[in-house]
Amino acid sequence: MDKIIDLRSDTVTIPPKLMLESILEAQLGDDIMGEDTTVNELEAKAAELLGMEDALLLTSGTMANQVALMTFCSRGEEVIMGKESHIYNLEGAATSAVAQVQIRTVSAENGVYDIDEIKNSINTGDIQKAKTSLISLENTYNLNAGQIIPMDNLKEIRSLANEYDIPVYLDGARVFNASVELGISPAEICKEVDAVQFCLTKGLAAPIGSILAGSKDFIAKARFNKQRLGGGMRQAGIIAAPAIYALNNMIDRLKDDNDRADWLAQQIAQIPYFQVDSGGMRTNIVSPSINHENANAEHLINFLLDKGIKVKNIGVKQVRMIVHYQIGQKELDAVVNALESYSKSL
Amino acid sequence: MDKIIDLRSDTVTIPPKLMLESILEAQLGDDIMGEDTTVNELEAKAAELLGMEDALLLTSGTMANQVALMTFCSRGEEVIMGKESHIYNLEGAATSAVAQVQIRTVSAENGVYDIDEIKNSINTGDIQKAKTSLISLENTYNLNAGQIIPMDNLKEIRSLANEYDIPVYLDGARVFNASVELGISPAEICKEVDAVQFCLTKGLAAPIGSILAGSKDFIAKARFNKQRLGGGMRQAGIIAAPAIYALNNMIDRLKDDNDRADWLAQQIAQIPYFQVDSGGMRTNIVSPSINHENANAEHLINFLLDKGIKVKNIGVKQVRMIVHYQIGQKELDAVVNALESYSKSL
Amino acid sequence: MDKIIDLRSDTVTIPPKLMLESILEAQLGDDIMGEDTTVNELEAKAAELLGMEDALLLTSGTMANQVALMTFCSRGEEVIMGKESHIYNLEGAATSAVAQVQIRTVSAENGVYDIDEIKNSINTGDIQKAKTSLISLENTYNLNAGQIIPMDNLKEIRSLANEYDIPVYLDGARVFNASVELGISPAEICKEVDAVQFCLTKGLAAPIGSILAGSKDFIAKARFNKQRLGGGMRQAGIIAAPAIYALNNMIDRLKDDNDRADWLAQQIAQIPYFQVDSGGMRTNIVSPSINHENANAEHLINFLLDKGIKVKNIGVKQVRMIVHYQIGQKELDAVVNALESYSKSL
Amino acid sequence: MDKIIDLRSDTVTIPPKLMLESILEAQLGDDIMGEDTTVNELEAKAAELLGMEDALLLTSGTMANQVALMTFCSRGEEVIMGKESHIYNLEGAATSAVAQVQIRTVSAENGVYDIDEIKNSINTGDIQKAKTSLISLENTYNLNAGQIIPMDNLKEIRSLANEYDIPVYLDGARVFNASVELGISPAEICKEVDAVQFCLTKGLAAPIGSILAGSKDFIAKARFNKQRLGGGMRQAGIIAAPAIYALNNMIDRLKDDNDRADWLAQQIAQIPYFQVDSGGMRTNIVSPSINHENANAEHLINFLLDKGIKVKNIGVKQVRMIVHYQIGQKELDAVVNALESYSKSL
Repeated sequence: MDKIIDLRSDTVTIPPKLMLESILEAQLGDDIMGEDTTVNELEAKAAELLGMEDALLLTSGTMANQVALMTFCSRGEEVIMGKESHIYNLEGAATSAVAQVQIRTVSAENGVYDIDEIKNSINTGDIQKAKTSLISLENTYNLNAGQIIPMDNLKEIRSLANEYDIPVYLDGARVFNASVELGISPAEICKEVDAVQFCLTKGLAAPIGSILAGSKDFIAKARFNKQRLGGGMRQAGIIAAPAIYALNNMIDRLKDDNDRADWLAQQIAQIPYFQVDSGGMRTNIVSPSINHENANAEHLINFLLDKGIKVKNIGVKQVRMIVHYQIGQKELDAVVNALESYSKSL
Repeated sequence: MDKIIDLRSDTVTIPPKLMLESILEAQLGDDIMGEDTTVNELEAKAAELLGMEDALLLTSGTMANQVALMTFCSRGEEVIMGKESHIYNLEGAATSAVAQVQIRTVSAENGVYDIDEIKNSINTGDIQKAKTSLISLENTYNLNAGQIIPMDNLKEIRSLANEYDIPVYLDGARVFNASVELGISPAEICKEVDAVQFCLTKGLAAPIGSILAGSKDFIAKARFNKQRLGGGMRQAGIIAAPAIYALNNMIDRLKDDNDRADWLAQQIAQIPYFQVDSGGMRTNIVSPSINHENANAEHLINFLLDKGIKVKNIGVKQVRMIVHYQIGQKELDAVVNALESYSKSL
Repeated sequence: MDKIIDLRSDTVTIPPKLMLESILEAQLGDDIMGEDTTVNELEAKAAELLGMEDALLLTSGTMANQVALMTFCSRGEEVIMGKESHIYNLEGAATSAVAQVQIRTVSAENGVYDIDEIKNSINTGDIQKAKTSLISLENTYNLNAGQIIPMDNLKEIRSLANEYDIPVYLDGARVFNASVELGISPAEICKEVDAVQFCLTKGLAAPIGSILAGSKDFIAKARFNKQRLGGGMRQAGIIAAPAIYALNNMIDRLKDDNDRADWLAQQIAQIPYFQVDSGGMRTNIVSPSINHENANAEHLINFLLDKGIKVKNIGVKQVRMIVHYQIGQKELDAVVNALESYSKSL
Repeated sequence: MDKIIDLRSDTVTIPPKLMLESILEAQLGDDIMGEDTTVNELEAKAAELLGMEDALLLTSGTMANQVALMTFCSRGEEVIMGKESHIYNLEGAATSAVAQVQIRTVSAENGVYDIDEIKNSINTGDIQKAKTSLISLENTYNLNAGQIIPMDNLKEIRSLANEYDIPVYLDGARVFNASVELGISPAEICKEVDAVQFCLTKGLAAPIGSILAGSKDFIAKARFNKQRLGGGMRQAGIIAAPAIYALNNMIDRLKDDNDRADWLAQQIAQIPYFQVDSGGMRTNIVSPSINHENANAEHLINFLLDKGIKVKNIGVKQVRMIVHYQIGQKELDAVVNALESYSKSL
């Protein structure tokens, strides 16, 4: 796979050698017994970074999200979230099979949640209506757009949630892409929510894992729910060690990913027949459309594949490109060249 | 309660004396053992009326709907339904707690489902996406509007569903209000769906119960699911006898309810400050808005209550009135008078 | 069915004419809105009878039991109950599909629960163990034996439960058969438990329904859970009216059922090849075994059926007979005669 | 922790250096996309070893077990398993919260399942009874005893299961401890079951993971269920690489663990006041009881802890010791010495 330029997702990132070597040095123990000190160190470090009381290592963002739902909500309660949320669209309907909550979707155009829609979606519960027990946000929002929730919007949601005494959860799979772009600490974002998860595997380039953070009581309950879903691991230090490396070395460089994505978007916008939606505060995701009668996503994807470039099909005429740890300027130049060739070929 | 004119819902209908007296004549038995012949007669009669192979008596529309979801879908699959559906809004999030399916809502303006939205909402399933296993319609649609799904729209949905091999369910709580209005048999509507439920307690004025109908195999499974939810009853003939009376005597008169509702809507439309949305094919539900700075739903409701008239609050400036078995021309005259007085008082 | 002597269950009881006629006099209303005054009267009356704060009418014992489990327990907690419990054996595994609790069974020989087994079954919860959140008893115990829990045993369980702060629930489907036999009020039994259900349809001979009773807060939550399962009904007074009649007229006569069953057991014990287990305090259930190489339950059942007598197969060589409202001395004489004939025929 | 002799469990095993170094050489990819070739290699290798069509890497035995239940059973079906099963006792009641099946326990004295009890526990399903859809075995059985299911017993169960058309699942967390002791291949055991899981983290000493194996169709469905529970991982090769090393290098040495445990059991049996239950075919687990009025498990555990030895409390007078990769003859000598000192101190 060495010469492939893989822009399909930032989940394909290959960890750097030093990150993997950290595994050999890690002190290991049985994490289900709470005795893997490397995991304990990671959890403490992550909690501090997010300004939360406690944190928990899980195998995936999906597990972190579902555990959060199960911990905040009893079976059969309602959760409000954006229409394009990962939880609603890409977690195998675990909301109904595992967390057992009913979803009410609201629109979040360009990452800005519609406050009125949220307000109108809140149920306080009666004999025929389950109560709303969580507002679940995503930042960056929409895995095909990567838009930042503006801090004002976030604060407004928090204030509304407080009014109704409803907790707020953040699926922050890519929250560091937002914080570096906003130039604020992740804790600054997280102080507006009651719990948050982020992925170690995307821009941070760690091989496996997500961190869920919140209050001590919340994390204690989440730890039980994680174990019940089979997420308990033994010598989990082999996951935690690269994760610690990632927290130490990979967060600041996310600004490069965002900047390169911005550069890429600008270049593509100048190529005939291509359009890049410029809505919202973008991060590391570019999802251009191609507007020519002979062109479509499938056709374009095959054209690029021939040149060793992989992008993701997200619509009849639209593809997704995510800039990440393995994508430098050289790779982007190749991508722009390939898109220009495609445009000319039409 | 004798002089009250109660327009809040058609669920408040009081059964006529003859209907109740049918209970005294009914042959009773243990229905869980399949030995209540009155229930058996009702189920056979209802199946025939709807053109289905078999039918099942249940205690409520909610139970019929949830049993249908459980019978069509495995845990964790997706169901497409209209945003204003009863199943989604007024069944205590049982979709998540009991049937355990994830809902994708589509718009159904004036009872006309958006075919493109349905099509775009279908998931065929992959490692991260649960498959769509049911399209769940409602006819009449929207319990605050009572709109008929046009037969063309229904057929188009059916055809789309067939293409993807997805069954279609109909929450037909008030399906007879639709059939009498369209001037076709209920079986004509039901032949476009795989299973259907209707309520015995609304316009049909029976005290308790709903009927779920479908194929023999579907009903056999539904019978088990009903029992598991605690819906099994012993001498259920006391529910079935009035239900048989209702099927024999109450369906045709629903046209009167619809016509009276239409007359009421026209009268209200002429009263200053009142508006009646005239979208779609309406049946027995009228939900006027009041458009004056001194007026609101709560205020209006109290004004009417003083005159012995009950209507339902469905929005800051909107109330709902349902015409039913206990509402004749005399009652409607009183309602129109009261609304005129209210209008003048503003 | 008129000449059949049906001993299969007391669920087959046909309501007396006066009981059914009570329906015609009943004031009806929409019970989901809390406006059926007959239901309200029944619930108040039942609560008082059981010495509980509040009560709720449901369609079946199964629903009452499952609603109780859902109200006491969160998803994934443990419930301790007797091995032969109805909840565990005859409710379609609703414990797992609906209430979602894990059952730990204990033995309750002759209706006497093994205290040590209960104690050893209690989990206080840790990272790998769900906590026990309910002890669920049955009185009379075992639907094939109808044994009374001795009051000492009941009090000992209560005391153990208090020590661990675990609530106690009573499936008292036939609790009045126990109270009349013990010569104490049902409230005397129920004061040892936190909530209780009894069936209106068995010895009480009402056509449909069960009553769940407990604290005000418990019943409020149970009412929501009932509605969510589809147990909400509209003019439920048609069920409540005969139930009120049953509470007024049918409880005391259960002593006759118990006495007749005792007489029947004694007669059968004297018939060659028949055995009646005499363990525990029995009520209205007799389950004789037949001990002859040419005999088995199926053979016996067919023999009796020819004589218009129905009994239930509960084992290769064992049948069940339940004495109830339709079974007087004349019927029992016929049964004893038939069994004697069978014995001679072997 | 370096000088501690930890016998609490074989889950505390620390991977050897060479095993961990395999991670640095591993080819990594996104396993959710099926592109981690190291994972693919592990799954193929494990399937072959077990004689199954396909296999799946999961994070834990608990997840493998719950995914197996979810894949074999629909919500609300019954599963038969031994009373002491891990699935029933140490998975947080996930059977009810996640897999949603009702458990019927049977006895399996010394690892020999009671065939009659299994037969009597099978439900074929009716209106009030959910059907049995799985028999779930454990080999070695009982995590406090580690007993081997005799092959005759296993074959008898399989034959009974076939008769009723019920699949058989094996929680083979320590199945290799059984196969090496029996001197047969694991595939020889697994050919009697439809699916099996084993743990990579116990005697095999890998840091994380379990393997679930079965038919191609079963594993395809299991892969979806794993993903839905959040068990999907990205560069899971870092788990798979040490697992491959373990399969290549750690299986045969399990015979040493078994033999050492046997030696330990024999030594302990000779120490005054200690008893070792000698029932069944044992593997690497020894659970001695101490029979002296001044002695109890807690007291003994503290005594041993002072000498740097950790054992697990499994009863008032009983502790568990598991022999594993870090426990050689030197460690066992120290343990025997310490137990002798304790005995003398009484």
